Amino acid sequence: MATTSETYEQFLEHVRQLHYVSDAGSVLQWDQQVMMPEGGTPARAKQSSALSTLHHDLLTDDRLGEWLDELDGAELDGEQRAVVREVRRDHERAVRVPADLVERISEASSNALPVWEEAKAEDDFETFADTLEEMVELRREYAAAIDPDRDPYEVLFEEYEPYLGIDTAEQVLTRLREELVSLIDDVADSEVTLADPFSGTYDDDTQHGLVEDTLDTLGYDWDHGRLDTAPHPFSTGTQFDARVTTRFKPSDPMDAVGSTIHEFGHATYTLGLPREDYGTPLGDNRDLSVHESQSRFWENHIGRSQPFWELFGETANDRLGTDASPREFYEAANTVHPDNRVRVEADELTYHMHIVLRFEIERDLIRGDLAVEDVPQVWNEKMDEYLGVRPDTDAEGCLQDIHWTNGAIGYFPTYTLGSVLAAQLDHHLRADIGDVDALVRAGDFDPVHGWLTEHVHRHGARYETADLVREATGESFTADHFLAYADEKYRDLYDC
Amino acid sequence: MATTSETYEQFLEHVRQLHYVSDAGSVLQWDQQVMMPEGGTPARAKQSSALSTLHHDLLTDDRLGEWLDELDGAELDGEQRAVVREVRRDHERAVRVPADLVERISEASSNALPVWEEAKAEDDFETFADTLEEMVELRREYAAAIDPDRDPYEVLFEEYEPYLGIDTAEQVLTRLREELVSLIDDVADSEVTLADPFSGTYDDDTQHGLVEDTLDTLGYDWDHGRLDTAPHPFSTGTQFDARVTTRFKPSDPMDAVGSTIHEFGHATYTLGLPREDYGTPLGDNRDLSVHESQSRFWENHIGRSQPFWELFGETANDRLGTDASPREFYEAANTVHPDNRVRVEADELTYHMHIVLRFEIERDLIRGDLAVEDVPQVWNEKMDEYLGVRPDTDAEGCLQDIHWTNGAIGYFPTYTLGSVLAAQLDHHLRADIGDVDALVRAGDFDPVHGWLTEHVHRHGARYETADLVREATGESFTADHFLAYADEKYRDLYDC
Repeated sequence: MATTSETYEQFLEHVRQLHYVSDAGSVLQWDQQVMMPEGGTPARAKQSSALSTLHHDLLTDDRLGEWLDELDGAELDGEQRAVVREVRRDHERAVRVPADLVERISEASSNALPVWEEAKAEDDFETFADTLEEMVELRREYAAAIDPDRDPYEVLFEEYEPYLGIDTAEQVLTRLREELVSLIDDVADSEVTLADPFSGTYDDDTQHGLVEDTLDTLGYDWDHGRLDTAPHPFSTGTQFDARVTTRFKPSDPMDAVGSTIHEFGHATYTLGLPREDYGTPLGDNRDLSVHESQSRFWENHIGRSQPFWELFGETANDRLGTDASPREFYEAANTVHPDNRVRVEADELTYHMHIVLRFEIERDLIRGDLAVEDVPQVWNEKMDEYLGVRPDTDAEGCLQDIHWTNGAIGYFPTYTLGSVLAAQLDHHLRADIGDVDALVRAGDFDPVHGWLTEHVHRHGARYETADLVREATGESFTADHFLAYADEKYRDLYDC
Repeated sequence: MATTSETYEQFLEHVRQLHYVSDAGSVLQWDQQVMMPEGGTPARAKQSSALSTLHHDLLTDDRLGEWLDELDGAELDGEQRAVVREVRRDHERAVRVPADLVERISEASSNALPVWEEAKAEDDFETFADTLEEMVELRREYAAAIDPDRDPYEVLFEEYEPYLGIDTAEQVLTRLREELVSLIDDVADSEVTLADPFSGTYDDDTQHGLVEDTLDTLGYDWDHGRLDTAPHPFSTGTQFDARVTTRFKPSDPMDAVGSTIHEFGHATYTLGLPREDYGTPLGDNRDLSVHESQSRFWENHIGRSQPFWELFGETANDRLGTDASPREFYEAANTVHPDNRVRVEADELTYHMHIVLRFEIERDLIRGDLAVEDVPQVWNEKMDEYLGVRPDTDAEGCLQDIHWTNGAIGYFPTYTLGSVLAAQLDHHLRADIGDVDALVRAGDFDPVHGWLTEHVHRHGARYETADLVREATGESFTADHFLAYADEKYRDLYDC
C-alpha cells in the first residue's frame, strides 16, 4: 500500500500533466489568433479538439478519483489540502457532466456562431432567438448535471468564479446599479468637456512603438513575454512566458494604450505566480474576478491616473507628434460617454451598467424568469433606465456580444467584480506602501509589483477567492472602495 | 462483434488522434524556435514532454495492437492496407522499445548538448568522447530492442528512411564517393573563377524582402503558410498550414535565397498532401529521403538554374541594389568550394562527400568496426581522401554537427538520397512536361507543381519509398540522373 506521501506525489504528477496539456492547448490558441494563416483552421480545430479530449480523459480518470478519495482522509498540510480542493472541484464537475452534453454544447456553440454573426449583421434578433433558446436550455442541463439541487445560474457563475459566492456578486452588482446611476446622471448633466488632444489618424507602426514604450515604462519582462496584435486583444501563457496582444484604432491611440495596459495587468499576474509550483494549483491563477482585478488595477488605477501621464506624456507626445499636457492625456483617458451603447467601447464608469444589465438578463433567462423573445425589449428598457439611452437597433443592443453565443453564461459579472476588487486592492496598496503617485511619477513600479506579488500573485490558487481578498486586504470583498474612488475621481473631473 | 468496417473506423479515429497530438507538438516546437521568449523554456519543455508521453501512450495502446491484429486478416482495399502497414510499423517499434530506454536516450541527449557545445567551443574531442560512446551504446541498445537479429545500423537508418533499403543507400553513397571525386578534383584544378556579384552587406529588411519575393515568384500559398526567421531554418506544419523559416547572413544574400527555396520545397510537399486524408498516413508525407527530394528539387534544379535567374535576377537586383546579370547570379549560386570543411556551408557538389564520410563513420561506430577515440583521425583522413583538405581543428571536423549529440545516428544518408532522388524526379518531370526551362523563365510553375503533386505529393505514405519512386518515375531508385546532371552542369561551369 502506498504511503500518503507516495500517493500525493503520484496524484501531483498526474495534476501536472493535466496542466501541461492545458497550457499546450493555450499555445495552439495563441498561435491561431496571432500567427496562423487563415487556411490552417481545419487542422487546428482537430489538433485543439484532440488536446481537449486528452485533457478531459486525464481529468475524469478513475485513478484521479481514487487518489482524491485517499487524500481526503489523509494528513496533509495547508498547501496540499488546497491542491486537493482545487483538483477535486475540477474533477467532480468534469465527471458529472456527460460527455455527450459537452459535445452537444461544443457543437451548438460552433453552429451558433454564424447564426449570431448573420443576425447581428442583419439586425434581426428573431433569427437568433431559437439559437439563444437552445443555448439557455443546454446551459440549464449543464448546471443540473453538476448539481440539480442548486440554483442553475449560481452553478454557471461558479464556472468562472467559484469561490466568491453568487450572493456577494449580486449584492455588489445591485449596489453599483443603485449608486452609480446618480453619479452617471450628474456627469451627463455636467457642462464640463474633457480634453481631446488627438486629431487625425496614427498608423500601426506609430501605435506599436507607443505601446512598446508603455510596456517598457511599466516594467514588462520581455524575457518572459512578447507583444503582438490580434483582432480581439487577450493575454495568455504561464509564469515563464506570459504574452500580451493589442490592436490599433487609427484615430484613437488611447484605446491601444489602455488595452495594452489591461493585458499587461493579466500577464503580470501570470508572471507573478510561483515558478516552482508550475503545473499545480499553487502555481496557477485564482479565477476570473481576481485575474480581472489585476488587469483593471493597472488599466484604471495606474494607466488612467494623472501621475502616469506626468510620467509618460512626453513619450506619448514624441511618438504621436502631439503636444498634449499630462492633464489633457489624463482627461482623454477618462472621458465618460453615457450615450455609448456598446460595452467594449464603454468608459470606466458606464461600463458597469452594461454588465449589470447583462447579469440581470442572463440570470433571469437561466432561472426561467425571462423569455428569450422578451430579451430585446428588456435590454432596451434597462439601457434607458441605467444609462438614459436606448439602442437604435438590436445589433447595437442585445446582439452585440459573442458571450451567449459561445455558451458563456455567468461570465459577465466577473468583469465588474474584477474592477471592484482592483479598487479595493488599490486602496490597501496605497495605505501600505505610501505615496504611490510619487512612485508612478518617478517610474518606480517595483514597490507596486512587489505588493501585488506579495499579497496576490504568489498565493496562486492556494486560497479561495473570498479568503484571498481577506488575506490581501484584511477585509471582506467590498464595493466601498470602488464607489468612493469613482465618486471622487469623476466628480472632480466633471465638477459635479 | 464489430464488423471490419467498424473496426477500421475505430482504428482510424485512434490513428487520427495520434496525428493530431503529434502535430500539436510541432506547433509548440515551431513556436519555441520562432516566437517564444527565452524565459519560456522550462514550461515549454514540460508541455512538449507531456504531449510526447500522451503520443507514446496512444501509439502503444493495447487496443491499437488488437485492431491491427484484427485488420491484418481482414479484407481491406489497397489504401486501407497501406494505413495498417504504416501504423503497425510505428506501433511495433514503439512497443518494442522499453519506456526506460526512451527516457534514458532523451536524458542522455539533453545532457550531451552542453558537453558537445563546450567541446566544440574548446576544440577538445576528448571531453566529448565518453558522451559519444554513451550515445552509440544507447543507440545499439535501441536497435537491438527493435530487432536483435538485424544489423543495428540498418535498424537505425530505417528510423528515418524505412522503405528504401540500406543496401540501396549504401550502393548509392559508395557510387557517389567513387564517381564524384574525380569531378571535384577537376573543378578544383579548373582555372575558371565564377562570378561573385556581391560586395558589402545586406540588412535583414532587405533580405527579408528578397526572400518574400522569392516565395511569391515560386507560388508559395500564403493563405496556408508564413515566413519567419529562425537560427536554424526549418519547415513544419500540415497540408493546411505549412510554414517556412529562413535566416540572413549579412554578406551572403544567396544563402538566404537558397535556404528559403529549400524550405519552400519541404512546405510545398506538405501542402500537396491530400487534405481529405489529414490525420492518416494517406495524408502524411513519405519519409526523409522523399521529403529532402522535394526541398532539393526546388533548391537545386529550379533555384540554382540559369532560367530561374533569368526570371528573378531583376527583382534581386532591385532588392539588393546590385547590377548582376542572370549568368552572374547563376554562377554565384553554383560556386564550388572544395576547400570548405563545414557541411552546412558546402556547395551542391562537395556536400555529398561530407555525407559519405559521416555515413561511413557512424555505420562503423554502430557496427563496432570503429572506436570512438579513432573518430577524429578517421574523419580527417577521409576529408583528405574525398575532398583533398584536412580540418585544422576537430571543431571544424568531427565536432561540427549536432546530430550524433542528439542521438540521430542513421539520419545523414537521407540528405544525399534526397538530392539523388531530386535529380531523378527532375529528369522525368522534364521528359513529361516538356520545356521546363521556358516555363521557369516565364514564371509559370503550375505545371511543375502539378507534376510533383500528381506523382509524389498526393500519394502521401500510400506507397513504400522504393515503390513510390517506381510509381513516380517508372524506374528504380538510381543515382544515374544525379551523376549525369552534376557532371554536365559543373563541367560546363568550370570548363573542365
